Parts: sequence; C-alpha cells; structure tokens
Amino acid sequence: MRFGIVSRVDKKEAVDVAKKVIDFLSDKAEVVVEKKLGEKIGKKGLPLKKIKVDIMVTIGGDGTILRTLQNCDIPVFGINAGAVGFLTEIKPKNMIPALGRILKKDYIIDKRIKLEVKLNKKELCDCTNEAVLHTSHIAKMRRFEIYIDDKMAEDIRADGIIVATPTGSTCYAMSAGSPILDSRVNAFVIAPIAPFKLSARPIVVPASSRIRIRIDKDDCLLVLDGQYEKKIGKNDTVSFTVSKIPARFVRFDHDFYKRIREGLIL
Amino acid sequence: MRFGIVSRVDKKEAVDVAKKVIDFLSDKAEVVVEKKLGEKIGKKGLPLKKIKVDIMVTIGGDGTILRTLQNCDIPVFGINAGAVGFLTEIKPKNMIPALGRILKKDYIIDKRIKLEVKLNKKELCDCTNEAVLHTSHIAKMRRFEIYIDDKMAEDIRADGIIVATPTGSTCYAMSAGSPILDSRVNAFVIAPIAPFKLSARPIVVPASSRIRIRIDKDDCLLVLDGQYEKKIGKNDTVSFTVSKIPARFVRFDHDFYKRIREGLIL
Amino acid sequence: MRFGIVSRVDKKEAVDVAKKVIDFLSDKAEVVVEKKLGEKIGKKGLPLKKIKVDIMVTIGGDGTILRTLQNCDIPVFGINAGAVGFLTEIKPKNMIPALGRILKKDYIIDKRIKLEVKLNKKELCDCTNEAVLHTSHIAKMRRFEIYIDDKMAEDIRADGIIVATPTGSTCYAMSAGSPILDSRVNAFVIAPIAPFKLSARPIVVPASSRIRIRIDKDDCLLVLDGQYEKKIGKNDTVSFTVSKIPARFVRFDHDFYKRIREGLIL
Amino acid sequence: MRFGIVSRVDKKEAVDVAKKVIDFLSDKAEVVVEKKLGEKIGKKGLPLKKIKVDIMVTIGGDGTILRTLQNCDIPVFGINAGAVGFLTEIKPKNMIPALGRILKKDYIIDKRIKLEVKLNKKELCDCTNEAVLHTSHIAKMRRFEIYIDDKMAEDIRADGIIVATPTGSTCYAMSAGSPILDSRVNAFVIAPIAPFKLSARPIVVPASSRIRIRIDKDDCLLVLDGQYEKKIGKNDTVSFTVSKIPARFVRFDHDFYKRIREGLIL
Repeated sequence: MRFGIVSRVDKKEAVDVAKKVIDFLSDKAEVVVEKKLGEKIGKKGLPLKKIKVDIMVTIGGDGTILRTLQNCDIPVFGINAGAVGFLTEIKPKNMIPALGRILKKDYIIDKRIKLEVKLNKKELCDCTNEAVLHTSHIAKMRRFEIYIDDKMAEDIRADGIIVATPTGSTCYAMSAGSPILDSRVNAFVIAPIAPFKLSARPIVVPASSRIRIRIDKDDCLLVLDGQYEKKIGKNDTVSFTVSKIPARFVRFDHDFYKRIREGLIL
Repeated sequence: MRFGIVSRVDKKEAVDVAKKVIDFLSDKAEVVVEKKLGEKIGKKGLPLKKIKVDIMVTIGGDGTILRTLQNCDIPVFGINAGAVGFLTEIKPKNMIPALGRILKKDYIIDKRIKLEVKLNKKELCDCTNEAVLHTSHIAKMRRFEIYIDDKMAEDIRADGIIVATPTGSTCYAMSAGSPILDSRVNAFVIAPIAPFKLSARPIVVPASSRIRIRIDKDDCLLVLDGQYEKKIGKNDTVSFTVSKIPARFVRFDHDFYKRIREGLIL
Repeated sequence: MRFGIVSRVDKKEAVDVAKKVIDFLSDKAEVVVEKKLGEKIGKKGLPLKKIKVDIMVTIGGDGTILRTLQNCDIPVFGINAGAVGFLTEIKPKNMIPALGRILKKDYIIDKRIKLEVKLNKKELCDCTNEAVLHTSHIAKMRRFEIYIDDKMAEDIRADGIIVATPTGSTCYAMSAGSPILDSRVNAFVIAPIAPFKLSARPIVVPASSRIRIRIDKDDCLLVLDGQYEKKIGKNDTVSFTVSKIPARFVRFDHDFYKRIREGLIL
Repeated sequence: MRFGIVSRVDKKEAVDVAKKVIDFLSDKAEVVVEKKLGEKIGKKGLPLKKIKVDIMVTIGGDGTILRTLQNCDIPVFGINAGAVGFLTEIKPKNMIPALGRILKKDYIIDKRIKLEVKLNKKELCDCTNEAVLHTSHIAKMRRFEIYIDDKMAEDIRADGIIVATPTGSTCYAMSAGSPILDSRVNAFVIAPIAPFKLSARPIVVPASSRIRIRIDKDDCLLVLDGQYEKKIGKNDTVSFTVSKIPARFVRFDHDFYKRIREGLIL
C-alpha cells in the first residue's frame, strides 16, 4: 500500500502528528510526503499534483482536505489537527489504531459529488464543499441572476450566492440558511448570503442541472472551497455542473447523521 | 379520448365552470363526471375510484387535485376555481383553448414523486404534497424522533414534523422553512414546525430512503395532503418511502421556476 | 418574612423537594402552602389566589411559575424540578444556601412586563410568556389580520400567531423564529407560526401599543402561557396591551445573557 | 422658511428634479444648494456641514438621505430619484403639491433614534440605518465577541455583525434575518451575517445599552450607513450607543406599517 502525507506546516502540533504518522507507516507501507512538509521535516517531498498513492493522509483541518482534493483524485483520510474538522475522520489520539485498520483494508470509501466550475467555458478547479460568488465591495450588495438549465430561477440582490454540494451544505452554506442535504442526495443547493428580498429561499437542484450566474457589476469575487479566488465582472459567465470526479473519503462507518450532529457548531 | 370531471360543489363558481367544461367536451370526447358533481347538476356520476379515463379535469383549488390524486392514478388537468392554486394549470378564462390543445394531444405530462405512508406497516393513502405529524394538543409541543434508514437523524421537540415531496416543498413545508426543491430532485424534505431547538434545520433525504418517526405521547395527528386524518400514539410507527405510483400533471410547458415564482404567496 | 409554597404534586421528586423547603423555612419564617400541596403532604393549605406572602417559592418547571404568576402578584422564586426550567432560578441541590440568602434579604427583584389579554373587551388572565392564537383544526391554516394601534400591520395566513413578552421571546416564540429580546426592552414581539407568506417576519412593537388580531373562521384557540385555553371565532376581537402588573422574579444577579445561553435548547 | 437642496449629481434625472424643486421654491422661500449640486447647475453652493436651514430636501435614494443625516442635524424631506427609496417620502411626480404642503407647515416630524459609533473611544459619525463590522477577506469568517453593558452576550464566527436602528431593521439588517422593529421601539437590533453557529439569533437590546464588539483578527472593516469605511483590527474596540441627536424626517402621516409594506422588496 502507498500513502501520501499532507500536513499544515504553520502549526507545530500538526507537524508533530505528521511525524508520528510517518514513523508508524514507514515500515509497513510506502510513504510519500508533500513537498512543503518534506522541507519542514528534512525529507524529500513531491508537489501534491505529482503524488500517486492509494490513500492521502491529511493532517490539519478542513482546509487541508479541500486543498488536497482540489489537486488530486485520491481517497483522503483526514486527521484533525485544526479548528474546523467537519471533513476529517479522526482525532490524533485515535489515529494509530485507525491507521492499523486501513493497513488491513478494514475501511470503506464514502464517495461525494463535487462541483465543476467554469468561467466563460474555461474550467477552474472542482469544489468539494462550495463555490461562492460575492461582492468584493463589503456591505455593497450586487444583483445576481441565477439560471437553471437556461431558465431564470432567481433574480436577487444579495451580498453573495453560495452553490454547495451535499458535503458543503453543513459548512458555509449552512451559515446562509441552507438545509442539511443527506450526503447521498444527488443535488446541489443554491443559497443567497444576506439576500435583500424577503421571499428568497435556498433552492435545491438536481446534480444533473447546469447552474449559471450572472452579475450586474464588475467587482465580484469567486471563491472556490475557500482556497482559490478569482475576480469576476459583469460580462463573465460562471457556471456549475457536477464533476466527473467524485471526492472520496476513507471512513469506518456510513453514519452520516452521527457525523453531522457531532460536527455541527451549535 | 375519455375525460373525467371532478369539481368542488360547494362553490357556485366552480360548478358553473364545470358545466362549461362538460358542454365543450361532450361532443368531442367521452365525459364521465364524479358522483357528487353529477348529483349537483342532474347527471349520472361515478365515485372517484371507479372512474377510468385518460385525463381527469379538476375544477377547484389544490385540495380538489390532491383528493383526486389520492384516489386515482390518472393524469390531472387542474382548472383553478379556488383560493390556493399552486398545482392547478390554468384559469377558467383560458380553459377552452387549453382543452382544445389537450384534445389535439398537444400537451406534456409532468411526473412527480409521491410519498407512500405506512402506519404500523399498514399502507395509508399516498401524498402528492406532504404528510404532517402534529401534536393534537394546540400549543403543547411533542418530542419527535426521526430515523433515516434506521439511523437516528434528529430528536426534537416541536409542534409537528412535515415530510414533503418536491411538489410539496413550496406549500405547507415552505411555511415551516423548507427550501424550494426543483421538481426533478429525487428527494424528500423533512421540516419541523415550530421546533424548540435552535439548531433545527430542514433535512433533504434521498427518495430511496425510509423515513420513520416516533412520538413520545398518545395525542398526535397524522394529516395526509390536508385531506386525510388519523390519530397517532406513542406505540405507533409512521414510515415514509417513495410511492411506486407518481403523480402526473397535464402541462403545456416544463418551466418549473416560472410556475413557482408566479404561484408563491410573497 | 412570609413564604408561600407551590409545587407540582404529580411528581414525587417535586413533592420531596417541597417538603425539604418547608422543613428548612418553617422555624425561620412563616410558611403557607398551596391547597393541592397541603392535601398531598397532610398540611392545611390555601388556594393560590388567597395566599398573601412576601415571596412565592415554586417547585416544578416553567408551567408551575406561569400558573403562579397568573394567579398572584407576588415575587416568585423558582426551584427547578421539571423538564423545562427557563424561568426557574436554581436547582434543588443549591436551594438551601439560596433560601438562606433570601432570608438575609440578599437578593434582587427582576421585574418583567406582562401582557394583558382582552377578549371582546373582557379581561382574561395576564401572560408572563406569551399568548397564542392558533387554528384549532390541525394543518389547516387560518387568515390573521394584525392591527397595531388600529393600523393594519400584517394580513397573513398561518397556523397561528404568537404575541410574546421579552421573557417569552426565548420560549415558544423562539420556535417560531422570534429574535431574543433583552429582558429590559420595553416591547412585545409578534411572530407567526408556519406563515404561508414568504415575506412574513416577526415584528417588534412598543409595549405601549395595542395589538389586535382578527381571524376569518370560527375555529381558533387562544392559549395563554400554555395554561389557559379559550375558543375564538371570527366575530371575536382579541387584544393585547401591557399589563399594569409586572412579573417579579427573585434573583441573585442580573446576568440576562448568561441565563439565556445556559437555558436555551441548542 | 429656508430650504437646503442636496441631490445626486451623477444622474441627470435627479439633477432635473433638483432644478424643478429650486424653481418652485425660489420665489416662495430662501433656498441654499449643496456645493456639488451648485457646480453642476451653475449656482453658488455651500458644503453640507455649513448649510443652516429649516428643511433639507434630498433628491436621490436612501444613500443621499443617509449622507445628509451624517452631516447635519436638520429635518430631511426625501424625493425619490434613486433605486432604493426606503427612507424617501415622495416620488417626483407628487413633489409639487407636497412642497406646497410643507410651505404651509402642513407636515409632521418623524423622529428616529440614531446610533453613535466609537472606535477606541473616538467618536465616528452617527448612523441612521446601521453599522456593519465585516471580515474584509471575502468568504473568510471572523470571530466576533459581542458585549452588552460589559456582559458577554454572544461569541460567534460569522461574515459580519450588523447593529441596526429600528429604521435600519428593514434595510441591510433585514437581509441578515432581523425582525421588523416598529419605528417607535426604543431599541437596537444586533444581527449576524452568515453566522457559522446554528443557534445564532438576532438580539434586540434597549437603546440605553452600550454594545461593544471585539474581533479576533486584524482584517475587518467597519461600514457606517454604507457611506463611511474604516479598517478595524483585533486590538480595536468598537462601541455603539444611542446618539444624542435623532434623525428627523418630514412626513405627511405616521403610518409606519403602510410605509414598510410598500417599501419592502418582496
């Protein structure tokens, strides 16, 4: 079995956990570390996009997982050494027995749909959680026209619009009033941030649909999974469809609701 | 072609529209009227369940359509002669040309999933919009345990719980904070009414799942599509799955979002 | 000092706490028990309305306090021996030192505004938390016209309307989407339950205003503090103003927000 | 009587209306124009802060009114020549008879409380609608600690926090889920924008309280009435109290609810 190791390097705690993971795995499997982590701990590493392994072990929070999934199509096993750990599977104190189970192939793969995002027909990176189109002028709302399969679904002034996967429905989209989407629902949710329209409601659309958003001014920002930013203007067309590549998570059970309830910030 | 005619009989306006429909269709197609309407206008009629036709024309509001769909598996064409007309397709003033198009087979069928509801494994009638489980003691909340595929998803005190189809997501469920579900989404939404829990959110689950609800007291009421009521106690199990039979609506276009925006009570 | 003792009598746990309170206070102050409690523990008691004391000690949950405040104008000290204890001040395990402080007059009075409710100009009992006007036909919404100082403020179809005090804003009204009203705000909040109108929002009105609600059918129920019920019809006028008599709570500090955060059902 | 005239100058339509207002008033009263407008129409003008008149006539939308009220303590009469006209009183087509009534002193003054905002004890300008404290890093939430009279009321991660007057409760705060505050309610409402905490609710606090907010990072922005911006860091303290100076609007009636319903964006 081959493992890739990705870690936050700005937190000593995370780097220490990463070292323990490497120590534990090294004599039982092949281990490749990401370049940045390698530099930190004095090991040779590879850029994320070049790592070809069976499982990526991430050490950090959701940001580390999202960055990993934006750059490679490999199942991810998340060890939580960060603040927000919705997507992570395990805490450092339980990681050794968990890695043991993985080595024995005693795990399941939880597949989740991702969003493919295009700017004027050019593909940007996929999103595991959500894409956000937001005014870049704080407290100055913009008008957003939302089309579903080329039919106008909503025309709304707001701070921004979130398009989220079921996985993302309990993250940023939740803050904007999204319902919880069971991870098996084959749909996306579109939720406005601070809509200046009393009748605004989140809309759940089939994953097979093409969502398209147009704005009325030249100063919006597109943010993908909180990791990637791009300026958007009124002549741009941003569109969203389901990605051909799903996100894959290494899990020990399929209990979506237990995960949700424990992870949610009440 | 054979048409069935169902109408509200408590409103003169509806009965008058029904007469016009019958007059128009009688020499162009076969027409069967429902028993109650027959009695009102001096024609022989049949009970709803015995009517076998190609299209049911309903005259009234959503209640008339919901009652028709609870009793027969025939495409419905709704003429609005009632207050709430979310499910109806046309206003009386436009009905003659519309019926003309139907006679020429110039229409489409809009299929919608329905809920199958079981009480202690015994099948009750299907729901086109929603099933509601509600305290029967006004202003006295009850505890509801919600299971999805036998996993506890929510444990909540509330006035009631709504389980709605995409069609029902813009009706009663909307009042309880449901998102709008595009009619093509293969899912149900579970929305609590007046939940005494700040973290409560609507949950969207795949149509393939089995939803089960248990209550903690002996005084709840199950209401199906606003048409059928049943008392429920703490030893009862109420469960919801997708029905094998869809609801079918006769339409002239597929523009879900136009329909929604025009129908919604702002 | 004179103490009145009111307790739930249907819960052995509450009655046992009541006995301990009586034992502790009896040789330090004058103690009067409510009739129902007296019968339970073999002591002579008085009906609530006849008890004239300095402080009422209630043992139970919020229901016990609300019933006490509906029947007498005396400061209340609530010992929590019930499920929901938003209004109670202390748990049984901490009650002896607390009663000791009260005997030494080491406490403060937290005054809260109450709602005066009139049906066709006839005064009903006051509400510490809220009044609810609700369809008595489950899942069958009614139309409510809400007037503030004789000006139409809202015309809405819903399951019901809650008019709440700041104290009640974190109880049933919260379930219907009410904001939290700081207990010092001199206002009431009007919140619809399951409104069938996307633009519906809770409204906060000055305590000096007169709220009046009219319904369109003959089958509504008025419920005051969850304790008192009355049938209401379409020719009835229900009105709400601030009561001349405030509710008074015996407290040891004024930290409203700490109380709220600890009491809220997340 | 003396009138001041303030107008948008970037819209020809507004400038044309301003000219008509000046023409109509000039032979009946004393008229002073704002400097920017004067330059546009070839008249001598004064800076806003130097204009001393009985009534300020503003031509434009809410922005024009808010800017005027930030700079002078004079009753404002708003003529709507902009997109959002919540605060304006009249449309251009009805303005001549309206100005006639004002000349005859046939009007009322609608007083509204304003927010006084201090940054590290230094007074910034007052707000008629709202102050917003917002992450300046789009889609990157920040932690906000909210204190009411030095007691911790809420600790929350969100995109931003809005502190609004009753006047502002139907503007930006409404987009963030604020209730409607009757303009006579002597209170402010604190509403989080996209809170990452399911239990977050708007809080209504007495106008007499001191609201204080602290943030955890160095990259927030304070925006006052959408007109004034200031960078805020983690060592800054931003506080809000009621202003000694109210906003005053020239009106012809006191029907708050009619105004609200007509102005709201459904």
